[in-house]
Order: sequence, then structure tokens, then C-alpha cells
Amino acid sequence: MKRIMLTIAYDGTAYKGWQIQPGEPTIEGVLNSELSRFLHEDIRVIGASRTDAGVHARGAIAVFDTESSIPGDKFSFAINKGLPDDIRIISSVQVRDDFHPRKVPCRKTYEYRIYNDTFPMPTRRLYTYHVYGKLDEKLMDLAGKHLIGEHDFTAFSSVGGQALTTVRTIFDISVIREDREVIISVTGNGFLYNMVRIITGTLIEVGQGKTEPDEIIRILEEKDRSLAGQTAPACGLCLAGYTFDDDMIAAG
Amino acid sequence: MKRIMLTIAYDGTAYKGWQIQPGEPTIEGVLNSELSRFLHEDIRVIGASRTDAGVHARGAIAVFDTESSIPGDKFSFAINKGLPDDIRIISSVQVRDDFHPRKVPCRKTYEYRIYNDTFPMPTRRLYTYHVYGKLDEKLMDLAGKHLIGEHDFTAFSSVGGQALTTVRTIFDISVIREDREVIISVTGNGFLYNMVRIITGTLIEVGQGKTEPDEIIRILEEKDRSLAGQTAPACGLCLAGYTFDDDMIAAG
Repeated sequence: MKRIMLTIAYDGTAYKGWQIQPGEPTIEGVLNSELSRFLHEDIRVIGASRTDAGVHARGAIAVFDTESSIPGDKFSFAINKGLPDDIRIISSVQVRDDFHPRKVPCRKTYEYRIYNDTFPMPTRRLYTYHVYGKLDEKLMDLAGKHLIGEHDFTAFSSVGGQALTTVRTIFDISVIREDREVIISVTGNGFLYNMVRIITGTLIEVGQGKTEPDEIIRILEEKDRSLAGQTAPACGLCLAGYTFDDDMIAAG
Repeated sequence: MKRIMLTIAYDGTAYKGWQIQPGEPTIEGVLNSELSRFLHEDIRVIGASRTDAGVHARGAIAVFDTESSIPGDKFSFAINKGLPDDIRIISSVQVRDDFHPRKVPCRKTYEYRIYNDTFPMPTRRLYTYHVYGKLDEKLMDLAGKHLIGEHDFTAFSSVGGQALTTVRTIFDISVIREDREVIISVTGNGFLYNMVRIITGTLIEVGQGKTEPDEIIRILEEKDRSLAGQTAPACGLCLAGYTFDDDMIAAG
């Protein structure tokens, strides 16, 4: 038996999110059936995160155990052939048999993309959230910086999450503009339910001049969801990637 | 009566190209029916270019005549409400009654995007052409520069075009890399059938080291289609925009 870690990219548009649900298209469901079919084993992947319906990924992580003799780094080539073209294994590697992607410390990065122009751009409509009118990305960046550190993020989470604690650490957050797209990148040790999308909705209000950048401090402290902004739509969100300590994952 | 010029962006994925065809989804067909429905007139747009099935646009141009009293710059807001979300009018303006977008000189820019990595990226699969293996964009840029100027582009065109002459002028061409995407931008006074896609296929061979950059000169001179590269697929191509002389279009 060996444990394989997959790095997965997907276009979440056609899926009801990561987590398997009977009768619904999910990333986990597609991976389980394609891996099982290909390897002639009953494969059940363990994902590092459960992204919501419509959320995309460039660097999602999952592990599975197999009796296969295929070298760890060759799985990506083999599995991609049988996957739909909106899911791709970007890389594969054998990891420690006891590596569990939700039980070791990690740094996780999400990216949220806003298309900021008078009209939405058709070729970007599935991957950005269209916001009309001026957005000051420098003010948004300033506001976001107040979130760095270990905080209780209750104000920036939706009810319905399964977390035992609402304390998380944000290592870094930045807001930059690339032409008409405003990109929010957040790296943390984990995120509460809808946390990045609520941070985004709040930063949009800052960018529109409706909320002062420093107001973020009070919203954090008050722990009141109603003080934060709206939950920005799923389509703008992308799970960009993970960093694990090398000795946590290295096989052999 | 007044003549309105529309600048149109579309995701070409679901369409059989610009030009109206009975029973097929086309950009021209959608625009004609939505404009006719909205204005209660029989509207037939005149497009500046007829893009092929699957090709995208950020700055396609079309004109139409109307008796409507709506100010020229307000059409975009009004028409977008009734369009499918893969087509958007980016701007609208009243132009000279005799402005015909295919009968006045213009500079037209196309952009071709290559996704250059081991595996394709799902969220970019509809807007890029995936090329595996090393691509040297500097060599591609060097080769492309030989195409600048007035030339007979027979070697870079497919049979089936309706052009009266195979001579065209390329004002500028550049190849740059943005992370994993290699972007070819070509500006010319017009393009033969499949010309940008054949130029792309040829530059890819240069980028792969299969063709020397200077070889482009001989391919041009020989006027032999078989010497040029393959026609790159439609999905990587985007009609980026037009420039017309201001006095050719200004109304009143």
C-alpha cells in the first residue's frame, strides 16, 4: 500500500462543490469513480478542503491509498486521460503513509477575482465577480492588512460551518489590480465557512468608499456578522494552493 | 434614422461564429433578434469581421440603423439586459450615416493565447490552446517580426476565404509571456482566412525549436501553405479590437 497526494485544478462551474453528494456532480465524486475505475480498487480520496458549489481551484489537494505499482509522479498523466476536461491532476507524488491533509498544519491560499468595469466581460464571467463603478484597490489592501494575525473571525463567517473554533490565523492578505481585475489573495492556516467571500464583500465596501479601512478592526472585535459585507459570489473564488512542511509529507 | 456603432465582447464557445446561419446559434443572429425585439424594428447589424466558430472577442464592431430616439451611448445599457451573458455590448455610439465598418481603412488587433505547461488549466481551457513542453517566446517574437509590413500572405491562409487579394499589411506583432500563457498580438489592416491561427501554428514550431526564426522569410516568399505550421484551434483566438480614423466615424 502507498499513499498518493494529488494536486488538482478544476473549473467549479458545473459542480456542486468538492464534497460527494448522491446524484450530484462533485469533484470528489468524479475523482473517486475515475480512480476506482482506472486502478480497479475502491478508491476514496481525502480532500484537504471542501470547496463550495461554483468555486474553482488551481491547487486543491487530496490523498488516496492504492496497491498500484505506478510510480507516484506518474499518476497525473494516467488519470488525466479519463477525467472530464474541467478537472486536471496537475501533479502527483507519493507521501508518508500517515499524511492526512486536514490533520497537519498548512498554509492555504485563496484568490478572489473581481471584474471591475461598466459591463462584465463574457470570457471572464465564470471566473470573476462583476463590480460596477470605482473600486480603490489601495484602500482595500490597507483594510485587509488589519486581518493579518490570529483573530476570532466570527464576524467573517456564515452559520453552518463545522469548525470547533472560530479562531484562525491569516498570514498574509493583499489586494492588487491587474487592468480591470482586482485580485484579493489571502493565505491562512484555515478558513471558516464563507470566510474569504465575506472578507471580499467587506473589502468591496471599503473599495467603494462605503466603509473606512480602519472600520475592519471594529468589525473583527465586535464579532458581529451583520457588520461585515455581503458574501461575494462563488464564481470569483479560486483555491490557489497549499504549503505543507516537507517532513510532514515526504515519503520513505 | 441614425447609425449606431456597437463594440461587442463575446465568449464564442457556444456559437457557430459571427455570421448568421439558419438554425445555428451565431453572434449576428442573437444581436439581430435582440435589437429587433427591443427596438420594434427589423434590425440587421453589419459586422466589421466574421469570426469563426469558437473564436472570442473583446472588441468586435457592428453598426445598425434605427429610428429610435435613444441617445447613441445609451444603447449598450438597454441592450445588455436582453442578451445572454456570453455576449455584452461594451459601448455604443452614434456614427456617420455612411460609416461602413468593412469599407473604411482600419487597424484590427487579434490576440492568440497559448497555455504552456505540462497539463492544461481547466479554468483556461476555453480561452487558450494548450501546448506541452518548452516554448521559447523570445524566438517566436523574433520570427513574428519578419511578418511586419505589406506582404502576400498566401502561405498563411486557408483556402475558402473570400478575399480578392492575398496582400495584407501587418503593422505590429509581438509575442510575450505572462506566467504560463504565451500571448501573440497581431495588428493589421485585415487578415486572410485563418491567417492569425496559421501564423500562431508556425510561431509555435519556432518556439519549439523545430523552425528557425528566419525561416519565416522563406515561407512568406514561397507562398506555399504547406511550409507554414498547423492552424491553431479557434478557442485560443480573441478579436481584441479596432482602430478607425476619428473623422471616418464621427457623427454630425
